[in-house]
Amino acid sequence: MFFASDNTGPAHPEVMAALGRANEGFATPYGGDTLTAAVQARLREVFEAPRAAVYLVATGTAANALALSVLGQPWQTVFCAPHAHIQEDECNAPEFYSGGAKLTLVEGEDRIGAEALSRAIAAEQTRGVHGPQRGPVSITQATERGTVYSLAEIEAIGAVTQAHGLPLHMDGARFANALATLGCSPAEMTWKRGVDALSFGATKNGCLGVEAVILFDPAHAWEFELRRKRGAHLFSKHRYLAAQMMGYLDGDLWRRSGARANANCARLAEGLRDISGVGIAFEPQANIIFCTFARALHRRLHEAGAQYNIWDGDLDGDDPDAPLTARLVCDWSISHAEIDRFLDVLRG
Amino acid sequence: MFFASDNTGPAHPEVMAALGRANEGFATPYGGDTLTAAVQARLREVFEAPRAAVYLVATGTAANALALSVLGQPWQTVFCAPHAHIQEDECNAPEFYSGGAKLTLVEGEDRIGAEALSRAIAAEQTRGVHGPQRGPVSITQATERGTVYSLAEIEAIGAVTQAHGLPLHMDGARFANALATLGCSPAEMTWKRGVDALSFGATKNGCLGVEAVILFDPAHAWEFELRRKRGAHLFSKHRYLAAQMMGYLDGDLWRRSGARANANCARLAEGLRDISGVGIAFEPQANIIFCTFARALHRRLHEAGAQYNIWDGDLDGDDPDAPLTARLVCDWSISHAEIDRFLDVLRG
Amino acid sequence: MFFASDNTGPAHPEVMAALGRANEGFATPYGGDTLTAAVQARLREVFEAPRAAVYLVATGTAANALALSVLGQPWQTVFCAPHAHIQEDECNAPEFYSGGAKLTLVEGEDRIGAEALSRAIAAEQTRGVHGPQRGPVSITQATERGTVYSLAEIEAIGAVTQAHGLPLHMDGARFANALATLGCSPAEMTWKRGVDALSFGATKNGCLGVEAVILFDPAHAWEFELRRKRGAHLFSKHRYLAAQMMGYLDGDLWRRSGARANANCARLAEGLRDISGVGIAFEPQANIIFCTFARALHRRLHEAGAQYNIWDGDLDGDDPDAPLTARLVCDWSISHAEIDRFLDVLRG
Amino acid sequence: MFFASDNTGPAHPEVMAALGRANEGFATPYGGDTLTAAVQARLREVFEAPRAAVYLVATGTAANALALSVLGQPWQTVFCAPHAHIQEDECNAPEFYSGGAKLTLVEGEDRIGAEALSRAIAAEQTRGVHGPQRGPVSITQATERGTVYSLAEIEAIGAVTQAHGLPLHMDGARFANALATLGCSPAEMTWKRGVDALSFGATKNGCLGVEAVILFDPAHAWEFELRRKRGAHLFSKHRYLAAQMMGYLDGDLWRRSGARANANCARLAEGLRDISGVGIAFEPQANIIFCTFARALHRRLHEAGAQYNIWDGDLDGDDPDAPLTARLVCDWSISHAEIDRFLDVLRG
Repeated sequence: MFFASDNTGPAHPEVMAALGRANEGFATPYGGDTLTAAVQARLREVFEAPRAAVYLVATGTAANALALSVLGQPWQTVFCAPHAHIQEDECNAPEFYSGGAKLTLVEGEDRIGAEALSRAIAAEQTRGVHGPQRGPVSITQATERGTVYSLAEIEAIGAVTQAHGLPLHMDGARFANALATLGCSPAEMTWKRGVDALSFGATKNGCLGVEAVILFDPAHAWEFELRRKRGAHLFSKHRYLAAQMMGYLDGDLWRRSGARANANCARLAEGLRDISGVGIAFEPQANIIFCTFARALHRRLHEAGAQYNIWDGDLDGDDPDAPLTARLVCDWSISHAEIDRFLDVLRG
Repeated sequence: MFFASDNTGPAHPEVMAALGRANEGFATPYGGDTLTAAVQARLREVFEAPRAAVYLVATGTAANALALSVLGQPWQTVFCAPHAHIQEDECNAPEFYSGGAKLTLVEGEDRIGAEALSRAIAAEQTRGVHGPQRGPVSITQATERGTVYSLAEIEAIGAVTQAHGLPLHMDGARFANALATLGCSPAEMTWKRGVDALSFGATKNGCLGVEAVILFDPAHAWEFELRRKRGAHLFSKHRYLAAQMMGYLDGDLWRRSGARANANCARLAEGLRDISGVGIAFEPQANIIFCTFARALHRRLHEAGAQYNIWDGDLDGDDPDAPLTARLVCDWSISHAEIDRFLDVLRG
Repeated sequence: MFFASDNTGPAHPEVMAALGRANEGFATPYGGDTLTAAVQARLREVFEAPRAAVYLVATGTAANALALSVLGQPWQTVFCAPHAHIQEDECNAPEFYSGGAKLTLVEGEDRIGAEALSRAIAAEQTRGVHGPQRGPVSITQATERGTVYSLAEIEAIGAVTQAHGLPLHMDGARFANALATLGCSPAEMTWKRGVDALSFGATKNGCLGVEAVILFDPAHAWEFELRRKRGAHLFSKHRYLAAQMMGYLDGDLWRRSGARANANCARLAEGLRDISGVGIAFEPQANIIFCTFARALHRRLHEAGAQYNIWDGDLDGDDPDAPLTARLVCDWSISHAEIDRFLDVLRG
Repeated sequence: MFFASDNTGPAHPEVMAALGRANEGFATPYGGDTLTAAVQARLREVFEAPRAAVYLVATGTAANALALSVLGQPWQTVFCAPHAHIQEDECNAPEFYSGGAKLTLVEGEDRIGAEALSRAIAAEQTRGVHGPQRGPVSITQATERGTVYSLAEIEAIGAVTQAHGLPLHMDGARFANALATLGCSPAEMTWKRGVDALSFGATKNGCLGVEAVILFDPAHAWEFELRRKRGAHLFSKHRYLAAQMMGYLDGDLWRRSGARANANCARLAEGLRDISGVGIAFEPQANIIFCTFARALHRRLHEAGAQYNIWDGDLDGDDPDAPLTARLVCDWSISHAEIDRFLDVLRG
């Protein structure tokens, strides 16, 4: 019963198999190998973006920080949601990679709306050389709260960024989950709605550690390569990044895994809704659920071996009736049996 | 006949097997897993350094740049050899991670001597607040030219750094090769000779992509963790770094592979010495050979499928007799058959 | 009728005279001159802080950014008010000098309360290595809205910072104005209430361009000197910074000028209150007034030659009755005649 | 007898007078004042560069570091002489402002030759993404050794930079001295020979603290303004920078002072040559002399009150006959009487 995060489960066997297949003979280092070229071509196909520049790195934070660094300047501010990963969970990596840019938190929680974004952008344009200059906008799809921007919402945000000539970045650490929710094509969720650069996550959805950065406009491609090397993120044995990503794309594993995680999550949410005393905080639209129930129930689950994070308050507090909120993340690898057992323990 | 680099060969089967074994069930992310703890303990044992702080990253440049960033300050200068990897091959990563420190090139080529180091340090102490301040010293073992510092040479350098209160860093991307050459213990080649921090390479010697940073003095351990995260080098699925390193350490694979690469190199060097018209530029002490022979011979080798880098001049030049220097790197995976065939082709 | 800012008026004649007196003969450069030593000693006396490290720079932004850079680390966040100068008016200088630290905006406007600060600090301590780490707290005295923290408020903030072991910085660009309001000693408004480092402004209050940074704890003194030089803020002909500051301190010019500016502001505020249709937005406690009245009146003032900034809306809009808010800043050099004429024009 | 540096003398009375004249009434801050506009126009005239972007800062290090930061990128290397001010005397300010660029020391001492520059540039182009990328070239006119590049030498360097598409920066902290030596126009010594950006010094030649940055190509003008503000170098009471520069330009004070300092230096050099036992190290071409004589003579001069720096060795050593080298800098304000007395004391 492991619901702590989608980075705690094993890599998918198909990804491991791809890794094994890549481990034959010699290969040109630093991304000059044929497998890397094939993966780049495949991602351009998947995204219907033949001109896009495609790069692989090993962590989501690297993907986000490097992508933002080529989209903006050190004297600018990046617009994002207050609970964006780049704001809360990257220990100032975006500031580091950008050379000291600021992050402006747009009114909202895990998501930003087009109107609030417009206001935030307008507020930053009144101080000439004195204020931070307006820079990239970054949205997360799916969000840290397990919600998903609709295509219309992305389009509205893209319209704002294009009206101001600002680049739009999408943190897609859980891109496959969002895509499964919306049922659209990758292009429809990105560049067709105004997204200029994407962090295309694979680690959380079944890989060991690989993410793609896709620059739909390749103008900054060479700069990206230099920044990646300078950031120490260029792998010498690059084929092992490429192999993971190829395994992830082959046979649509990425879509299958994203859909499976979402389905797991829906099954769990359905069960939770039926249990009296359990409240669901946000509408779960991808593979994350925030749900609230009494401390005593949390303790029972933990004693039964369930692993997940308490989002607020303290498991060891005094009042057994006090409501605590859990964050439950459904990995691609979670089994129906685990979900059902979790619900059984909760039902008592 | 792949002699281009030791990052072009496959990962060792034992490393791949360790990776497979680690891919079972759930594991705490970000290095909180039991395998990571076990690897850290193992490295402390291997280095007889029970207090050392041990961290894993995926690239050698990350290991070097992060290690140096905790040893120095942005207003300091790092002393190194003119042909150090940190100077020539990391696209200013040390400058980036240090926040803008300088690198001072100590007289020499790939190595620095204690006396030249003393002079360089002395030259930097005369300008008060105006000049860059003296910072860490970094040496490479084995060097980029395939040579190895003797224990006495490291000790002499360590004596200089300690006399000035400066930290000493060792770039050990090819640590196992150097150790095989010297036949000493890891502790004898490092902290017993004054080394404060080590980049312990594993990628080049049979892993997919993993290096350890060992801080023999753990004073900056927490700072290192924050810098690693901020640099986007903290893996969420950290077990896959740990598994590679464990496979590398288990059964002394790392020592066996280093010794094997060195032996391959010695066999190749021996063969080369016996061929008239072939000159060897540096005394090969680890797994790299720089050797010079006529362009026509290089062409013959390339036509026969040999892959390696020409260190100077142009393979496509006019004069078939012009001497060109090759860099030949022996990977752990090179076979005797390949070496012998290379020599056969060269002999004509 | 120049109320645009306190950086638009002339330097005080006593400061100019001090500058002239300093322009005799030769002087050791880079702050090694006797006048600089005398100014440092004088500031230590004024602040009853014999151990303090005292430095001069030419701009308030340099004072703030350098002070914060020695108090914090690149992976930390600086807590400040949403309308702090360091957040809104320094084009990311704090981020630049800190090497990429973040700024966390504490709930409030131009000021922060101890309770809101506590909550903001608490919110940043839950994410381990992933979140930005807690760093310095910065308050502005007097604030950008012309208000002044009471001694009790500073003490409460100082209690919070000390409880968490965080350093407290005060941006005192208008320190003399605040001091005139509170009528206390410099020590009572700073280190006796927990302030660790002060930007002691002089430019706005009658100098050409000089600010002191006072580090009450001299632990980071040498680091400050290196950062100042590296930031290109160490003047070679340092006596001209020292002369300004000495002229500013001699005969308590700084206190006289601050009191005079406040008195000018009070006279203006009193007049404004008596005019029907004029509203005052914040209680003016130093030398700045925010007041609201109809666009037609603003136009009349501007036509009469009054210079000040409209804080919201557009002077050239359509509706003559629309309320617009002015920011009126009283320089030390404003005359009663100018104030009275401003009021006369406004009265019509 | 003050020959320590040209930053130890007083400001010129005409500069002080200009400062006094500027201290009347109100002026728009941050460079929006009429005096600043007039100075910018004047400098464009002086340099016959009507399109140039012209900015004022207070220190030479700020001028150099900011100029280089807009000419290059963090992943590049700046080519300069080993004894360039940017390398030796700015405590890593160029690295800080550039975001971590490297400095490559071209073979030479205080000057670089076109051929050595070509070799250095060629050496940096062989490593693709791994090595630092080629960036700006910076030369110093007059140099730190008191020598001056001829127009032909600058032209040859400019030809190299243009051939490689690299920008050329001139550190003109002693521009007026060099111009007096060459007797050409400012344009002939700069953009007509390929210089793209100039640090135009005024502080050392009679001002209190002001330097101009002249970007002959204004493409990066707005970026420069943002970097200047972010670097905390934008003065609020900007008129006091402008006033100094205007006083410096008015009536060709800058040329008169530069010529006077050079003439002082020539008088001193002539006297030194006539004294037996005194050797001159470099041909003095501007206002600096390096000369060598016995320790006993240095002691006699210091006892007589002469102030200057010993460039090598120790004044307090044992051997009175040991040769020590002095650096003698002639300020504009040095009198003939001082020079003659210095020579008299030396003659004994």
